[in-house]
Amino acid sequence: MTIVQFHHRDGILDLGWGHPRPALLPVSAWAAAHERALSAYGWQALTYGHATGPAPLLDWLSAHLGDAAPAQTFVTAGTSHGLSLVTQVLAAPGDVVLVDSPTYHLAFKILTDLGVRLVPVRADDPSAVAALAREHRPAFLYLVPTFGNPTGASLPADRRRELVSSGLTIVEDDTYRELSYAGAAPDALWRLAPGANVVRLGTFSKTVAPGLRLGWVNAAAPIVERLARLGSVHSGGGVNHTTAMTMAEFGASGAYDRHVAVLRESYRAQRDALTGALGVAAPAGGWFVWLRLPAGVGATRLLPIAERHGTSFLPGPVFHVDGGGEQHVRLSFSHLSAAGLAEAGARLRAAIAAA
Amino acid sequence: MTIVQFHHRDGILDLGWGHPRPALLPVSAWAAAHERALSAYGWQALTYGHATGPAPLLDWLSAHLGDAAPAQTFVTAGTSHGLSLVTQVLAAPGDVVLVDSPTYHLAFKILTDLGVRLVPVRADDPSAVAALAREHRPAFLYLVPTFGNPTGASLPADRRRELVSSGLTIVEDDTYRELSYAGAAPDALWRLAPGANVVRLGTFSKTVAPGLRLGWVNAAAPIVERLARLGSVHSGGGVNHTTAMTMAEFGASGAYDRHVAVLRESYRAQRDALTGALGVAAPAGGWFVWLRLPAGVGATRLLPIAERHGTSFLPGPVFHVDGGGEQHVRLSFSHLSAAGLAEAGARLRAAIAAA
Repeated sequence: MTIVQFHHRDGILDLGWGHPRPALLPVSAWAAAHERALSAYGWQALTYGHATGPAPLLDWLSAHLGDAAPAQTFVTAGTSHGLSLVTQVLAAPGDVVLVDSPTYHLAFKILTDLGVRLVPVRADDPSAVAALAREHRPAFLYLVPTFGNPTGASLPADRRRELVSSGLTIVEDDTYRELSYAGAAPDALWRLAPGANVVRLGTFSKTVAPGLRLGWVNAAAPIVERLARLGSVHSGGGVNHTTAMTMAEFGASGAYDRHVAVLRESYRAQRDALTGALGVAAPAGGWFVWLRLPAGVGATRLLPIAERHGTSFLPGPVFHVDGGGEQHVRLSFSHLSAAGLAEAGARLRAAIAAA
Repeated sequence: MTIVQFHHRDGILDLGWGHPRPALLPVSAWAAAHERALSAYGWQALTYGHATGPAPLLDWLSAHLGDAAPAQTFVTAGTSHGLSLVTQVLAAPGDVVLVDSPTYHLAFKILTDLGVRLVPVRADDPSAVAALAREHRPAFLYLVPTFGNPTGASLPADRRRELVSSGLTIVEDDTYRELSYAGAAPDALWRLAPGANVVRLGTFSKTVAPGLRLGWVNAAAPIVERLARLGSVHSGGGVNHTTAMTMAEFGASGAYDRHVAVLRESYRAQRDALTGALGVAAPAGGWFVWLRLPAGVGATRLLPIAERHGTSFLPGPVFHVDGGGEQHVRLSFSHLSAAGLAEAGARLRAAIAAA
């Protein structure tokens, strides 16, 4: 009986899954918020909703983010869904989309499903971005600039300013912003240029629960209006109304802030367990360590050796449109306990030594 | 503060809204099912779900429908979302899609958002369908053959058999099947040819609540697999996992069957109030009366007269891709109480007499 995406493999402590640790999912707090939302709003929580999202969620989210008005906010069914809708609005089949390299691998098919052509670029190299922008006139550049997937790294402040002033339309996947383990996260590209050429994708998948399928887009009001006029959005009365109403209650009640504080403590400890076992630097946020392998050890060749040692990972090439990445592997510290991560890290060290 | 799509207009008993009557939304039963689902399944209800939908819902739905295996079932975020995903899988930009005429108007933009070209056809005219199929080689034919929107009518059995044996791929919007007020609904096209050339769209929007954004597709297993491999579906771990897990509990507990029985009684009485006031025949199911206007009274001209008389409707041309429909108006009996419908019907009669 298959309920969830995750599947356990006997004897493997798997660092490949970018999933939350099950014990960190807020089962009872979410159930309580749902009960309160239905009790407070009654039928209004269950009928066709407002196309851009219900006001209670737009209002709480706007206050929480502090850098986007409700009219610059559109509720999505998660970042994947948001990226698909934004691409429908910003790009036409045949258009080029620039994608950071490496970047979130599952974005590639979301984009190509809509007929766009992907061209990889190092988003931290302004001259490369400018040259490809001139050559391809892309519909937009997609990147995860903050606590990125797969690198865990953040784009430096000067590179952020250069990007937002480049004139390029930018789709900023801001999935990991809240999971900051050492002070505030860097300013979002959106915050540097709100309402101009930046569209930000946000999500509750990492901070509350992925199964909710709930997130948002921040964009200039005319883009929000175009999203709201998409056929499936208008017809459906918003894209996830009842869940959005529950999230409004989860947020306004303070449950969200309490839960994210717990997550930061827990994921920081998990991160430290993994980076400690590997003897590598700790990323400042997010879910991932982008491990550079010793010279002569390729990611693809290492994978079966690691699995024989009882651990696993995603090899670097997965995150590249055009090959490359053999010198890196992505390790997720979100899914296993600190003890499991320490053991997985030790197994990976042994596998690398044996490779 | 805008929460819902519906907006009240003072003095108007509006027959235009295809929305459920607020009192018929199962607020407390749904909240209870959500509580039980989270209690029973814990973190598995909140994490990334199985891409085609969680097994508890696929299993209950398959047993409930009686004509589709779990492997022929894909959970969607409602019929609008399902139509969008099915179009991504079955059609390419530039393809022709045949649409029944008249048919569900909000489907038009869902389809054209993906770059297909719409060609209207009377789906109850086999020779017209065959001629347009030869001329355009359409990706598929879209229709609502059972208790249709806007007509309330159902395609006759012989026409159903002709369609499914025509070789055309058919997307059957089966939204109103459960709302049958006079015995069993006609056999679905899907049931006549399961797993062959028919793709069925089902939804819980009319039987439970639209705000849930939950529905399903029945299709041959290879089409289900292609839906599951869409980038946004795979990345998101299914498209509405937590809600799907709650629906599994709502179904398996018997709450669904009890609720639909209540709906049938209520909507039948609402239907009778409206058709009684108008002195017209009652449709056997669904939410709509497709009223033929007297000669010389056009729908577009009647609308402002009706609003001055305190009622409103959707004029027939809305449901046609290519004009036409001036002799009909769509009246919804889903949203108002029986007393409200009787009064709205009387106002509409007066408006027609004054036109």
